[in-house]
Amino acid sequence: MNKQILLVNRPKGKPQTSDFKFEEIDKPTARDGEVLLKTLYVSVDPYLRGRMRDEKSYIEPFELDAPVKSSIVAIVEESKHDQYKEGDHLVGMLDWKMYQTSDASELRPADPDQAPLSAYLGILGMTGLTAYFGMTDIGEPQEGETLLVSGAAGAVGSVASQIGKIYGMKVIGIAGSDEKINMIQEQFDVDAGINYKSTDDMTAAIKDSTPDGIDVYYDNVGGEILDAAMNKINRHGRVINCGAIALYNETGQPTGPRLEVTLVKKSVKMQGFIVSNYQDRFQEGIKQLAQWLQEGKLKHEETIVDGFDEIPQAFIDLFDGKNKGKMVVKVGD
Amino acid sequence: MNKQILLVNRPKGKPQTSDFKFEEIDKPTARDGEVLLKTLYVSVDPYLRGRMRDEKSYIEPFELDAPVKSSIVAIVEESKHDQYKEGDHLVGMLDWKMYQTSDASELRPADPDQAPLSAYLGILGMTGLTAYFGMTDIGEPQEGETLLVSGAAGAVGSVASQIGKIYGMKVIGIAGSDEKINMIQEQFDVDAGINYKSTDDMTAAIKDSTPDGIDVYYDNVGGEILDAAMNKINRHGRVINCGAIALYNETGQPTGPRLEVTLVKKSVKMQGFIVSNYQDRFQEGIKQLAQWLQEGKLKHEETIVDGFDEIPQAFIDLFDGKNKGKMVVKVGD
Repeated sequence: MNKQILLVNRPKGKPQTSDFKFEEIDKPTARDGEVLLKTLYVSVDPYLRGRMRDEKSYIEPFELDAPVKSSIVAIVEESKHDQYKEGDHLVGMLDWKMYQTSDASELRPADPDQAPLSAYLGILGMTGLTAYFGMTDIGEPQEGETLLVSGAAGAVGSVASQIGKIYGMKVIGIAGSDEKINMIQEQFDVDAGINYKSTDDMTAAIKDSTPDGIDVYYDNVGGEILDAAMNKINRHGRVINCGAIALYNETGQPTGPRLEVTLVKKSVKMQGFIVSNYQDRFQEGIKQLAQWLQEGKLKHEETIVDGFDEIPQAFIDLFDGKNKGKMVVKVGD
Repeated sequence: MNKQILLVNRPKGKPQTSDFKFEEIDKPTARDGEVLLKTLYVSVDPYLRGRMRDEKSYIEPFELDAPVKSSIVAIVEESKHDQYKEGDHLVGMLDWKMYQTSDASELRPADPDQAPLSAYLGILGMTGLTAYFGMTDIGEPQEGETLLVSGAAGAVGSVASQIGKIYGMKVIGIAGSDEKINMIQEQFDVDAGINYKSTDDMTAAIKDSTPDGIDVYYDNVGGEILDAAMNKINRHGRVINCGAIALYNETGQPTGPRLEVTLVKKSVKMQGFIVSNYQDRFQEGIKQLAQWLQEGKLKHEETIVDGFDEIPQAFIDLFDGKNKGKMVVKVGD
């Protein structure tokens, strides 16, 4: 028996279970060059909401009456693929199906001896890799330096902060509630936190928190928090432009202080990126993150829901904040 | 016999010969660890005017009644230094004196077999090295890519443009007169030029000149020309922030379009620098620039004036534009 979950309505406002439809289908068999995959863990993520709209973005919208896709960990049940054999675990963008075939060209191995399989959807998945490559490749972290992270309680920012600590940096995190500030300090050992929602003068708050200036700024938000950070950036500082969520809903061209004089005078680098730039180095990143996880140097939070039939509800629950950390649905062992 | 030139008045407006004083002094002898240097070529540069003001900047002001300093090529006449022997040529920041001693710690070798000695004050000096390290280290130039250069007729911009051509790039230069545009096209083989002073809409002009977008922007000016360039920057584009002269005279904090969304969406790097960041690699840069010069791939313009006594007047003549390219005073052979 096989099942799939189709998107049958484009949600209006909060998604509802009636936007999805379960369908029983045949279990396929692998053709030459393919693997037959059994789904084990399914990632549900807020960004999937965007793909349910009929709007072009940096990623294609989902089609109606077709299966939803997200990051999935699966086990090879049958292989006609040179590279993979029965029992291998793979992770990548797959359909919400219990069984499916794939040529595996876009999939990566997941090693259960290295980390729990669900971790490949979070800290060993795209969010962990985004933090890893931003911090190590662009940030060039050095022991004793000061790292400022915005969105520090988020999936990417919390890993970036912890990587900063691993490299021996002093880490200051910015987040939007006292609860989040407590979490990053207690759980992720961040040295100091700034709740930007209860702070009138971010420039002063950042100045107070960074007596030695800022060597690396991991920026998930852009806008005025970036401006405030640039006031305290050190000579040879690095700004990792990972996101600019403060500007994504603006209409028209937002303006702000010009940064080029600071860049020249202080020899500062600002570099934007998306994680897929590092596709060729994903295995390196996963291996390092898994090692830190095993050594207890990286911590991650996850909420695991049980059963294939629970996938739509788990996705909907994201918008009520019912998850702590990464939300994952366990479908099989 | 030895002579030196002192700064005796801080110039008001255009410098005058009466701001300087010639003085006969004893010819020194080298002590242990020192060389006795005979001055051969003296660089006169507009930036020296800034050091004649009693204002702190990124470089110390000249003292009154003390010798002026600039980049000088000299020959070792006597050596008590382990590293250098009689007849060696050295270049670096030295006093306006016919003879002086130095511990040579801030000096670099100049090889007359590699290039004419005067070139070590221009294309093989700070301006050439600034263009070289900006282009090669930050710009990461690739054959077939498009390079945009602002200040393209200047000492740095003209070398940056030529380095772009050496790497097989399509080069578009921005300058402030039709004469300069003609020069960069005819003398330095730049593919197209934009006279920003006679162009109303720089965004449109840059768009027309860069049908394949901009892969590397060598920015000497900042401000609105940077904004216009960012509108056409390609994915994985690199912006070399070498200067922001358009903003240096502004009072208050200049504002402009925010760039962080472009940086993230297009994975763009912006990096500021000053040439002294690359102090450890100056020899590498000089060797490569000298090779390109010998091979005829790099061209340089210079105006050579004869005689130690002409140094102040040559400096003053800079402000009347009496030089073509780099202004150098020849003192000896």
